Amino acid sequence: MTPEDFRKRGHDMVDWIADYLANVTRYPVNSQVEPGAIRGALPDAAPEQPEPFEDVIRDLNEIIMPGITHWQSPNWFSYFPANSSGPSVLGEMAAAGLGVQGMLWSTSPAATELETVVVDWMVDLLGLPNAWKTTGPGGGVIQMSASDSAHVAMVTARELARQRASLDRMVVYASDQTHSSVEKGARIAGFTNFRAIPTDAAFAMDPAAFEEQVAADRADGLVPVFVALTVGTTATTGVDPIRTLTGIAKKSGMWVHVDAAYAGSAMICPELRHHQDGLELVDSYTFNPHKWMFTNFDCNLYYVADRKPLIDAMSILPPYLRNEATLSGKVIDYRDWHVPLGRRFRSLKLWFVLRHYGAEGIRHHIRGHIELAQDLAGKLEADPRFELVAPHPFSLVVFRHSDGDTATTRLATDLNGTGQVSLTPTTLRDMSAIRVSIGQTNTSKENVDALWALIDQLA
Amino acid sequence: MTPEDFRKRGHDMVDWIADYLANVTRYPVNSQVEPGAIRGALPDAAPEQPEPFEDVIRDLNEIIMPGITHWQSPNWFSYFPANSSGPSVLGEMAAAGLGVQGMLWSTSPAATELETVVVDWMVDLLGLPNAWKTTGPGGGVIQMSASDSAHVAMVTARELARQRASLDRMVVYASDQTHSSVEKGARIAGFTNFRAIPTDAAFAMDPAAFEEQVAADRADGLVPVFVALTVGTTATTGVDPIRTLTGIAKKSGMWVHVDAAYAGSAMICPELRHHQDGLELVDSYTFNPHKWMFTNFDCNLYYVADRKPLIDAMSILPPYLRNEATLSGKVIDYRDWHVPLGRRFRSLKLWFVLRHYGAEGIRHHIRGHIELAQDLAGKLEADPRFELVAPHPFSLVVFRHSDGDTATTRLATDLNGTGQVSLTPTTLRDMSAIRVSIGQTNTSKENVDALWALIDQLA
Repeated sequence: MTPEDFRKRGHDMVDWIADYLANVTRYPVNSQVEPGAIRGALPDAAPEQPEPFEDVIRDLNEIIMPGITHWQSPNWFSYFPANSSGPSVLGEMAAAGLGVQGMLWSTSPAATELETVVVDWMVDLLGLPNAWKTTGPGGGVIQMSASDSAHVAMVTARELARQRASLDRMVVYASDQTHSSVEKGARIAGFTNFRAIPTDAAFAMDPAAFEEQVAADRADGLVPVFVALTVGTTATTGVDPIRTLTGIAKKSGMWVHVDAAYAGSAMICPELRHHQDGLELVDSYTFNPHKWMFTNFDCNLYYVADRKPLIDAMSILPPYLRNEATLSGKVIDYRDWHVPLGRRFRSLKLWFVLRHYGAEGIRHHIRGHIELAQDLAGKLEADPRFELVAPHPFSLVVFRHSDGDTATTRLATDLNGTGQVSLTPTTLRDMSAIRVSIGQTNTSKENVDALWALIDQLA
Repeated sequence: MTPEDFRKRGHDMVDWIADYLANVTRYPVNSQVEPGAIRGALPDAAPEQPEPFEDVIRDLNEIIMPGITHWQSPNWFSYFPANSSGPSVLGEMAAAGLGVQGMLWSTSPAATELETVVVDWMVDLLGLPNAWKTTGPGGGVIQMSASDSAHVAMVTARELARQRASLDRMVVYASDQTHSSVEKGARIAGFTNFRAIPTDAAFAMDPAAFEEQVAADRADGLVPVFVALTVGTTATTGVDPIRTLTGIAKKSGMWVHVDAAYAGSAMICPELRHHQDGLELVDSYTFNPHKWMFTNFDCNLYYVADRKPLIDAMSILPPYLRNEATLSGKVIDYRDWHVPLGRRFRSLKLWFVLRHYGAEGIRHHIRGHIELAQDLAGKLEADPRFELVAPHPFSLVVFRHSDGDTATTRLATDLNGTGQVSLTPTTLRDMSAIRVSIGQTNTSKENVDALWALIDQLA
């Protein structure tokens, strides 16, 4: 495809995307297809000969689109948001067009340096410890997902602890509300001792229970090495008390990792930063601009207070990657900060987003989502048909039907069945519950009012 | 940004990309900036207020572009290619616009099912074992990079071996030419015993040396669990004899992983498949359409002969991810096939590429690149100023100056210094050498002739 052919097809594709976004509410939010329907509609073999691009677009419209669940609908209330936005899509386009590899500084200096600039910017934007800037002992890096960051944190902690204990005596801690990626990451990193600490009424890790478990493990000759704390758990956006828990963890020399995958974006609002009190004491931190900061997946930020043990754990330098810039020590080679070698130019979309919205623009949207969530929570709380099952410090509201599990599950099924909204049914402490996550880029009062009308009608 | 604003900006961005691609040869191939230049030209803090998008594009042109190394230039001969192409960029655009998460089948069925379709298509296209199709016991999945695939393979092998040995007694094998990601992945997976087996004159793993090392380790009470074989090593595109080596490995019950990151794409040409003889005996395999199949990074394919141990090692199911489709067992949830949870809709770009080119179109380009490499190798071999230092079965030619290391290093520096080409200086068995990797999407005879003219002139 020549540049001129691309120009023509590219304009068509931009129109296709713009039309999609303008009409996204006309689709059922959740795809209605049955398992195997898309696969069955596609041929069993790739074409031998080139096909006209019109045929590809036709199949995109006719075969693929019915199998799309519309995460970019303003009526998306499931999981957490995985937001896109205009400037972010433009950033993805530029990155794809340039097609550079940022594995080393020297393989495209701008890819590395822009990444350093935006991760440093974010330290100030979110009120993170100043030592985490690349100008200090720490630093940030873009990874694919919070799962990758938790895994890398655990591998680093494991390597640091090797002098003190064998792997089968090391213990990893999290709460019973911690995201599953931590238990998964622990298993992948080779740990065999994983403790899920009980949580309190607000779904925050119980410091007394944590302290007791650590003491019991130490008494058994085990070695505590890692704890994952969460600001904004997946089930309810519970907040672990970082300062208190880190104090306990540090007495045993543990690595403390903070997962703020969803709620981290909200820390751009100073009035919410009390939720992250104590961050200056922790070792690593992660949050996802690809959730609630209007930046396409994948864009996970991972920070460490000290980059040396991370690089010690991840670095290896074969002859074909040696180069003057790397050997000079004057540059960052981000391949040494994570598992993969190759790297997309992901900082471009985040830079586009930060400049298009400005910090004030992002605050405006996040505060708006939080206000909508608080309004909805108020309505649910005031209505005897419903019960809130958890605090709602951010933009997630978790509720149930007062008639119990069956009525709750049926309500969730009925709501999703309308095709007008998508929300996540879940189980919380053996009770059925419904998660309403408000935070899609374009979700407004009108969308949440319509959701409330549906809840009211179907309950 | 409204859909209509996006439409306008999107058209501008398509023109920007098309102009870039049309003019890519006007830039010095390698960026000429000094460390810190880009970072120093950008402000220390993110903007508080929104900025006009024109300002962002101005800074993209004036600040970022001088720091770009042009991987999409037809004069790119460094590393291996990290190709883009028109249909691939269009696929990235569509994926960004849709902004779906494919972590579970149910979170966007088309993302999962199209992925299954294209990875199954690829089995036939590359002549891989039929049992690797998802309709059999195996299956394929898209990951970020070959590093991730090697790591996941090692974690799976480690979990399978847990019954037989403790981690500190397990041994991982590769050759002294295996990509650094295998040693790195072994360390990250927690292995402490790693053996680099010597290679023969063609840079292929020496079966006798492998067998001896395995016997010595077993005699020491160690347990061989994993070997990585390569079809097309990074330094020289050496090819390990899969059938022979797998025969040795299987006597000790090892997991055999094959890394064909670069050369895998060439297997679309039946005349080259003798290089992968024995694949039906191995446990896992990876190749990168994002290298030599005209598909943007990231698009790594990872296949397993049996998906059960992979899913056993990677699966974890918290309440908020439970859903009817998953529990029915009728669908694939690709989050259980790797470390991360979130997933981009990466199959879209590969589908666009396969349909736009057709298998014949891809073969045409790959055969063209190989022919250009063979021609260049012939010229180098016939000229007493140069020596070829390795066989050249695909599209990589590795040579040195007959006058020795200093002359070779100077030639590489001079060639890169022209700004007209980019190639990788390296060290091979303590000798300086120059890698010429031919395979950028648009590299033609004209580009390789110009490279030869430069070599001739500067030698």
